Amino acid sequence: MIGRKLVEAIAADPAAVGADVDRLTLVDVIEPSVPPALAAVGKTLAVDLSQPGEALRLVEMRPDLVFHLAAIVSGEAEADFDKGYRVNLDGTRAFFEAIRHEGQREPYAPKVIFASSIAVFGEPFPEKIGDEFFTTPLTSYGTQKAICELLLADYSRRGIFDGVGIRLPTICIRPGTPNKAASGFFSNILREPLSGKEAVLPVDESVRHWFASPRSAVGFFLHAARMDTSAIGPRRNLTMPGLSALVGEEIEALRRVAGEKAVKLIRHEPDPVIDRIVSGWATDFDASRARSLGFKAETTFDEIIRIHIEDELGGKV
Amino acid sequence: MIGRKLVEAIAADPAAVGADVDRLTLVDVIEPSVPPALAAVGKTLAVDLSQPGEALRLVEMRPDLVFHLAAIVSGEAEADFDKGYRVNLDGTRAFFEAIRHEGQREPYAPKVIFASSIAVFGEPFPEKIGDEFFTTPLTSYGTQKAICELLLADYSRRGIFDGVGIRLPTICIRPGTPNKAASGFFSNILREPLSGKEAVLPVDESVRHWFASPRSAVGFFLHAARMDTSAIGPRRNLTMPGLSALVGEEIEALRRVAGEKAVKLIRHEPDPVIDRIVSGWATDFDASRARSLGFKAETTFDEIIRIHIEDELGGKV
Repeated sequence: MIGRKLVEAIAADPAAVGADVDRLTLVDVIEPSVPPALAAVGKTLAVDLSQPGEALRLVEMRPDLVFHLAAIVSGEAEADFDKGYRVNLDGTRAFFEAIRHEGQREPYAPKVIFASSIAVFGEPFPEKIGDEFFTTPLTSYGTQKAICELLLADYSRRGIFDGVGIRLPTICIRPGTPNKAASGFFSNILREPLSGKEAVLPVDESVRHWFASPRSAVGFFLHAARMDTSAIGPRRNLTMPGLSALVGEEIEALRRVAGEKAVKLIRHEPDPVIDRIVSGWATDFDASRARSLGFKAETTFDEIIRIHIEDELGGKV
Repeated sequence: MIGRKLVEAIAADPAAVGADVDRLTLVDVIEPSVPPALAAVGKTLAVDLSQPGEALRLVEMRPDLVFHLAAIVSGEAEADFDKGYRVNLDGTRAFFEAIRHEGQREPYAPKVIFASSIAVFGEPFPEKIGDEFFTTPLTSYGTQKAICELLLADYSRRGIFDGVGIRLPTICIRPGTPNKAASGFFSNILREPLSGKEAVLPVDESVRHWFASPRSAVGFFLHAARMDTSAIGPRRNLTMPGLSALVGEEIEALRRVAGEKAVKLIRHEPDPVIDRIVSGWATDFDASRARSLGFKAETTFDEIIRIHIEDELGGKV
């Protein structure tokens, strides 16, 4: 989803990456499609980075800039140990190694923007997680992301590529239809009522979490692509800014933006399993470093809702 | 060196590991030798964990307890990228994977004590590095150790084995002869004068660093082997306690224990290269967690020197 929106943003304004785009290759396990606006420069490639030799096919095109968002999600990585490590760790490492080998053949050091996650952190947490808090993930997904962050920093330190790791907040409002991810309700309770549909809230309104809009997420990647990384130094992995908010605050914002009628569409249906999972998640961060490096996110849920209305609903509720 | 002393400690008192030792296998790339006291139970095996399939030869013996100290050192891992990752990361991961596969064949979850390093940390540091400080290594060696720590925690969380990561301070006084490691002088300036020989001090006496004796290091591994890991929880990697001391304090302790004559054998010969390397190292830790879990180290350099005299010099200077 972020990948698609990132491509759309580049299609709308190629200068957003900070350089002329004379070639753009969309890569996925299944061959993706090129938006019409990018037809002149866009190509596609089906590559499974976790298969031997595949990463080379990507790197031999010698892109100047790579956004690396390929991963299997948390639940799947937890359920399938082998697949999680193969895709999320070995796939990324194979890609990094392919860059190193290409650079040995002929000097080459692209910029690499890597999608990491706040899942690199594991409870117990301080009230606000600072930029120097340790990474003790409690899932295999978080472990794989934390390992890739370490590799990214070491490869960058050695000049093999110029990497930036982007630890994304939970993206809200996620477009599309309700899915079964434990975090799905954070978006469902806004997106569905905004379209006149019912949504289920499985936790208490006092649950706090860490959010950014899809538009901010795209902005993080574009800003990382444009920025001068000499300002970052060797600590290449950054917790992105976000909004710490209660579920109750989401609902209050919905009331302000779309009225009581929308709020009435939220059905409270406590689910102890989801409640237990979510209670182990981080609730607040002090993302000073990323903010001081120019990364920006929303500061109210009203903004997050308005962005969804503008970007997904044609500006109207 | 620690491995050898660990074996000697087990030979002297097999109960030190907290269980009867009915079989003990010493494993190294080159076949090691068994101390006479362990002749009845000891076996040896030459295994290169970084070679495909080799880890299985170790795991198919189904040891209940494994001390994993195999690694190439920092300087070599920095000079030889491929070898560092192959031995320090892939070798360890192959060993962890072999345990997982053996456990899939027939239930098995040994205790694994892993030698990590304070090289997982990278400057700038707070005055004292706390237990929750992040790991941003500035060497490939430190990166490899930090990655293995993450794997150890994830495999332990999943019950594949019961792991403890031991972040060792700089070991002092290291027995033997002066070597070319940048950290060598910390030991050289004590060990050599204690035997009536000259030693070179390449840095200022105001340099501060973090130390423990070889006896403490062995104690860390044995304590980890004996302890009930349910007290550790999922944060399996522990910064060991140590002594934060100035080079000047080392020299004062030498004066107290062995007299002015010994101190006069230290030749000051500033080396800007070593000075620069050492200035990037951690100087002090708050190792509260490990201390509260029962790990112990020296509190004065006088103790560290006396331990060397007892263990290496037959009790006499």
